[in-house]
Amino acid sequence: MADAQKPLGNTNRTTVHRVPHKAVKDRAVLHQILDAALVGHVGFVHEGQPFVIPVAIARDEDTLLLHGSKASRLFKTLASGVSCAVSVTILDALVLARSAFESSMNYRSALILGVAKELEGDEKVRAFDVLTDHLLPERRASLRPMNDAEIKQTSILSLPLDEASVKISSKFPADSDEDLAWPIWAGNIPIDHRYGTPIPDPRMTTPHPLPDYLKRWPEGRT
Amino acid sequence: MADAQKPLGNTNRTTVHRVPHKAVKDRAVLHQILDAALVGHVGFVHEGQPFVIPVAIARDEDTLLLHGSKASRLFKTLASGVSCAVSVTILDALVLARSAFESSMNYRSALILGVAKELEGDEKVRAFDVLTDHLLPERRASLRPMNDAEIKQTSILSLPLDEASVKISSKFPADSDEDLAWPIWAGNIPIDHRYGTPIPDPRMTTPHPLPDYLKRWPEGRT
Repeated sequence: MADAQKPLGNTNRTTVHRVPHKAVKDRAVLHQILDAALVGHVGFVHEGQPFVIPVAIARDEDTLLLHGSKASRLFKTLASGVSCAVSVTILDALVLARSAFESSMNYRSALILGVAKELEGDEKVRAFDVLTDHLLPERRASLRPMNDAEIKQTSILSLPLDEASVKISSKFPADSDEDLAWPIWAGNIPIDHRYGTPIPDPRMTTPHPLPDYLKRWPEGRT
Repeated sequence: MADAQKPLGNTNRTTVHRVPHKAVKDRAVLHQILDAALVGHVGFVHEGQPFVIPVAIARDEDTLLLHGSKASRLFKTLASGVSCAVSVTILDALVLARSAFESSMNYRSALILGVAKELEGDEKVRAFDVLTDHLLPERRASLRPMNDAEIKQTSILSLPLDEASVKISSKFPADSDEDLAWPIWAGNIPIDHRYGTPIPDPRMTTPHPLPDYLKRWPEGRT
């Protein structure tokens, strides 16, 4: 947990200039946001055009793992060592103020800049386990193990959490005192991200019981 | 609704090469995905570095509106006419297969490439209403109206939906026949995005009633 004590690698590029009170400097908060997310949006330039792709993620200590296919043109470009940006955003609430201008959203968001490195060999096999344990906690031990062909078809990139910023908005409507008199309901509408009722695979002919660990899976993941 | 009949502007850059059966060519589906989302992730290059920022969005006919602050350095770059990419992703389920390799997620996603144009004057005022009606349906009529200073502080960009791709994954585990014998529960875990119990603003001293329209707000928005 020593990592969590390091300051974030704030450079001028990742300093929150506009609304500095929303910037968070605590590396533990960056880790919490990444650990609460299933997917990040990765931006990079491919043949002169910016692209953004949604990618399954998992944090491994002080790096972020990105999961993709070896056959993806865009993922190949990302793996080739180009500069990238990963945005991870969790929407927490709609903030209903008395004006459209003051209405907003509460969120937790992180931005990481850097160059992702493709993992190979033992590092890659270990990274697979980290990804599986993050996306499907406690399920790995009961899964049919990965084989070499599957490991080859998949690409896992590792992006150091060296240059990052965190922005959190968690507030009630910030209406002016004058606007408070406006005669409407105001407040926050939480946005909950929840796992719903499991739907058994129709091809599961033997009725295996629903695993207990599903009850322990964290809510609020996006 | 004629727009919805136009084919998507698929160029080589936005053609889904890798898993073509996940590609959707129907413009109406693109519209549905954008209409179900509150936020898109916008990628572009600023001072040589790719960035990705989460931005409130609303679809206006066959354009996508992007909402930001005039004071944001990054948003200024985006408004200056640089190439950008907007990714909109809605996670629908975790797909629990018998192997880590076949485990995946169900999602609906859109990618739009282009150059966003900053709106001014009447177009901007109208775009504000479209954004408000999308993010806070039916609430606008009861809000304190926007004033000129507020309109000036906000930036609204319009991105034509001319070059876009849509990718949808909606399936049960695709395990091999051999893997079906693996002795574990398999199936899908839906990810529900729901509005929670409204939390009144503590500064609302007159107890205005909760608006009826909140009950009609669409679920599943991210």
